[in-house]
Amino acid sequence: MSNLQQIIDEIHAELLPRLGAGNVADYIPELAKISPHKLGIAIVTTDGRFYAAGDADEAFSIQSISKVFALTIALGKSGDALWKRVGREPSGTGFNSIVQLEYENGIPRNPFINAGALVICDMILAGHQPKEAIGEILRFVQFVAEDDTIAIDPAVARSEIETAYRNFALANFMRGFGNLMHPVELVLGVYTHQCAIAMSCRQLARAGLFLANGGRTLETGCTVVSRDRARRICALMLMCGHYDGSGDFAYRVGLPGKSGVGGGILAIVPGEASIAVWSPALDQYGNSFLGTLALQHLTERTGWSIFDKEARPLVKTT
Amino acid sequence: MSNLQQIIDEIHAELLPRLGAGNVADYIPELAKISPHKLGIAIVTTDGRFYAAGDADEAFSIQSISKVFALTIALGKSGDALWKRVGREPSGTGFNSIVQLEYENGIPRNPFINAGALVICDMILAGHQPKEAIGEILRFVQFVAEDDTIAIDPAVARSEIETAYRNFALANFMRGFGNLMHPVELVLGVYTHQCAIAMSCRQLARAGLFLANGGRTLETGCTVVSRDRARRICALMLMCGHYDGSGDFAYRVGLPGKSGVGGGILAIVPGEASIAVWSPALDQYGNSFLGTLALQHLTERTGWSIFDKEARPLVKTT
Amino acid sequence: MSNLQQIIDEIHAELLPRLGAGNVADYIPELAKISPHKLGIAIVTTDGRFYAAGDADEAFSIQSISKVFALTIALGKSGDALWKRVGREPSGTGFNSIVQLEYENGIPRNPFINAGALVICDMILAGHQPKEAIGEILRFVQFVAEDDTIAIDPAVARSEIETAYRNFALANFMRGFGNLMHPVELVLGVYTHQCAIAMSCRQLARAGLFLANGGRTLETGCTVVSRDRARRICALMLMCGHYDGSGDFAYRVGLPGKSGVGGGILAIVPGEASIAVWSPALDQYGNSFLGTLALQHLTERTGWSIFDKEARPLVKTT
Amino acid sequence: MSNLQQIIDEIHAELLPRLGAGNVADYIPELAKISPHKLGIAIVTTDGRFYAAGDADEAFSIQSISKVFALTIALGKSGDALWKRVGREPSGTGFNSIVQLEYENGIPRNPFINAGALVICDMILAGHQPKEAIGEILRFVQFVAEDDTIAIDPAVARSEIETAYRNFALANFMRGFGNLMHPVELVLGVYTHQCAIAMSCRQLARAGLFLANGGRTLETGCTVVSRDRARRICALMLMCGHYDGSGDFAYRVGLPGKSGVGGGILAIVPGEASIAVWSPALDQYGNSFLGTLALQHLTERTGWSIFDKEARPLVKTT
Repeated sequence: MSNLQQIIDEIHAELLPRLGAGNVADYIPELAKISPHKLGIAIVTTDGRFYAAGDADEAFSIQSISKVFALTIALGKSGDALWKRVGREPSGTGFNSIVQLEYENGIPRNPFINAGALVICDMILAGHQPKEAIGEILRFVQFVAEDDTIAIDPAVARSEIETAYRNFALANFMRGFGNLMHPVELVLGVYTHQCAIAMSCRQLARAGLFLANGGRTLETGCTVVSRDRARRICALMLMCGHYDGSGDFAYRVGLPGKSGVGGGILAIVPGEASIAVWSPALDQYGNSFLGTLALQHLTERTGWSIFDKEARPLVKTT
Repeated sequence: MSNLQQIIDEIHAELLPRLGAGNVADYIPELAKISPHKLGIAIVTTDGRFYAAGDADEAFSIQSISKVFALTIALGKSGDALWKRVGREPSGTGFNSIVQLEYENGIPRNPFINAGALVICDMILAGHQPKEAIGEILRFVQFVAEDDTIAIDPAVARSEIETAYRNFALANFMRGFGNLMHPVELVLGVYTHQCAIAMSCRQLARAGLFLANGGRTLETGCTVVSRDRARRICALMLMCGHYDGSGDFAYRVGLPGKSGVGGGILAIVPGEASIAVWSPALDQYGNSFLGTLALQHLTERTGWSIFDKEARPLVKTT
Repeated sequence: MSNLQQIIDEIHAELLPRLGAGNVADYIPELAKISPHKLGIAIVTTDGRFYAAGDADEAFSIQSISKVFALTIALGKSGDALWKRVGREPSGTGFNSIVQLEYENGIPRNPFINAGALVICDMILAGHQPKEAIGEILRFVQFVAEDDTIAIDPAVARSEIETAYRNFALANFMRGFGNLMHPVELVLGVYTHQCAIAMSCRQLARAGLFLANGGRTLETGCTVVSRDRARRICALMLMCGHYDGSGDFAYRVGLPGKSGVGGGILAIVPGEASIAVWSPALDQYGNSFLGTLALQHLTERTGWSIFDKEARPLVKTT
Repeated sequence: MSNLQQIIDEIHAELLPRLGAGNVADYIPELAKISPHKLGIAIVTTDGRFYAAGDADEAFSIQSISKVFALTIALGKSGDALWKRVGREPSGTGFNSIVQLEYENGIPRNPFINAGALVICDMILAGHQPKEAIGEILRFVQFVAEDDTIAIDPAVARSEIETAYRNFALANFMRGFGNLMHPVELVLGVYTHQCAIAMSCRQLARAGLFLANGGRTLETGCTVVSRDRARRICALMLMCGHYDGSGDFAYRVGLPGKSGVGGGILAIVPGEASIAVWSPALDQYGNSFLGTLALQHLTERTGWSIFDKEARPLVKTT
């Protein structure tokens, strides 16, 4: 598979002329400053090889991709009891919709829409000060990425909380239903810091590898989660990882993935590889426009879609 | 894999004591007559082996599982133009909900909810009499199942259309938006006959095999669809095949699947196998209660979840 | 009040230059043929005086205004038991919305949205053939209008039923919930014929007079309904008579009223008068644009708003 | 009308045995402490007579009834420009629903649901400190009630803001849409203090009299609003004053009214009288159960419904 490098180089070259198509998220002032003319691709395989193209070493705000890591931590703390407070179904509505919460008594549909992620933060806060909770999330990401240099961008966190009216609305609404235990400000504080973690594609791909690797880290082989939990997190990513564009992503790309409004996407090839792409301009659903396209080309050329596997030859039994 | 037979025998034995848990669909009078005390499991692998347990040879009404075959036919006729009239996102609502249609101008969210399946029938009707369209669907199922004995149960079709008020509502609603071209009665006629196809687990598993087999039939190796289309149909099945219980099915089973209110489920293991289970009593979402449980046990014991694959060992490059 | 004629002549003259503003309903082909350049105003007072201006003697299709007469008949048959099958709250949604029905088990919010009117027709059908039910409605209108020449326009009825997909959807949907007892085709047949009653402003104003007149007809003094029921029907008209534009109508006009997509509006001044206006071009809610404006001018100049009454002078008790 | 006292004494006596039916609002701790065994009725007529029965002189928390006074102030400041930020249609949903805001871009349906009242507070805050805005509202109520002793209950205000998660959600949600100009905390501060105004039935009836009195106060005859604006505020009260129970109130009582979760209702008889009733136990919509019943009996015995007026006798013109 030495031609994997060649494949991503080609994809990068093919997409370069389209750099800038789509719209950069403008509701977080700090993110609106980012140039849309970026495209990075990084792959880590479970046997330990690294591939990168374009802006794969430039750090960006991972935003909602952090929800995968936060969910993993919360499952470690609460186990299946978590599912009493959050569902695991696609929402059928936008990432920051509040309609479903009113009809369903403040229980968010899944942990990857904003409302669900706030409940997850509330769980991580249990017994902690906000700084400790934020520290726990950051250290977890450093641990799974096997990289202590990963940090939170405080300017992004500040910028986000100043305009986080919609998230404050979601949090207050759920608190009214008794589905948040901590003061709304503290939960939002944890949430915005988690979203402000800055990573390069290379770092992010490595951080997600445990999900492709039966739950274990790459170098040290530490068990982050059981193999069983890893596959269930992947199932959630496929079903809900791209909000109301999840069906489209499954149809075109065919991999468990999680996007962020910073333009990043983490995608998992179970047993094979972890992939991170980054391009800041977004499509109508708030997912990276070129990032999705890059992943679509990649699965088409590698056959990595989880819905695609070479069939065994027919055994003639006579 | 000779122990595959052993696995399904064990699962069948373990679930027998729970036969009857859940509720048989009662809104179609003919289906309400079926005993809930049934459980069949059948598997066909891409290398041509067959495994069966329990009531695997008793014919049942495939109901909504037929939507997979109808979609395959319509994609063959219309190609990607089909997606102008039907979406490919999870609906977030029940199988017969009309709310989403009002908010989204009569375009159903996906081809596996009732509204979407009616649009698919309308496409298959183009240029045909209803009898021809029904005949085309039946012959297609016989072709992919490589079995000419498969037939439609006319009593079920009749019974269904007499109480199909909700489907008549959906069809009229979409016709009002211009998203049905043919008279509502004709579309419903095709739809109810397609749902009334009767098959055993063994026949159904074989009929679905082309989706696991790169788009080709088992014995004759005929290309039903391209490998690329097969994987995309599988993606749709995973995302939308169990209505508002699709997330739960992905989380627990981890296979592309399509359920019917007759109690059947067709599940696909890409590259490996096609599985059919049948048990008439349903869960809260209208999916077979024991059928889902049987599939969950099966993927846990076989590692067949598409989110689960043995990772490659780390290559020490020094 | 001899200047009442002068007032409506002035209003007619003032509005003439704006004739044609708005849009004629185009979803019923026969109605789309009507010239928008029409404006009629007619008033009958409870003391027996008649006033008319413009096209007050040209017959038009009363459409949804018929729902007031049908409700009156159904209340006569069922009394308060009627409210088990229909609510009496504003819907907050458009006249042909189906969303609310799904959330509220097939019980329409009120008898003046289409869904509610279909339930009312179903009640009138009880024990009757459709022709008898249609005949009963027509005879009732002739009776309250004290005019045997009023008739149904069969071309409009035919035209309407051919494109009544949305109403067929509503009716099937409610039948699925058990809130329609008769075959959908029969209910729709009664409904479309009721809507196709043709009347002039003068006839319509007179037909509505019993609601202003304590429940009695003008000349013969027959009791159509009790005074108590008359005021309750007026309350329903104010709250729900203009669909999701009811609040605006109450704010601007301040009279119980019922509009039809044919461009007519019937408005009641309790104790004083019955008013009919007609101008075919509609506003965004499907209510007559100039008709509403004419009524607004009329209540401003007559002080007829039910929210406006000369206060008694303060009695100095010392 | 000396028998008006007799009528309310009878109504009070008849309803006494039912004291306590319904539920006292428990989401505001201070209100939950109030005994449900209270019933007060007070009437002020435009000619200056006072009638009272039961607990008519005991102060209670007027809660949402304050929205009538706040709207009057805001109309004085902004005039019809106010309607760009708030609608004037019934909402069709509960008093604290957020669903409609998501579908309609953060514009509340009317000024009497919580979301709309928050926008009104935001308008009153313009150019003011919160304390000034609160002071302005209180002084306005004292002015129209011609009673300087009316005050805010600070314990209720404090109690309310501590559990006002749902209102914080609404405010943040609208701020996200740009329909609140001031910090959410300040708007909520004004809102909760306005709701915590404490008045007796006698004081409240007098405070509302200007709406029955052509816009003028009783004793001093000061013009609070134009007669035209008074009738339009009454129209809004009828259409939206009882949330999703407004239709029922119009049907049964037939007067413009505004309820509060403290158990009070203010009802207006244009030209005639202002009525205040109080009984803390609420019905399913959050409106006073016995208060509504008292008003229903009152309009039945007085003929005060705005939909009910003695018709003029027919003039025989020959």
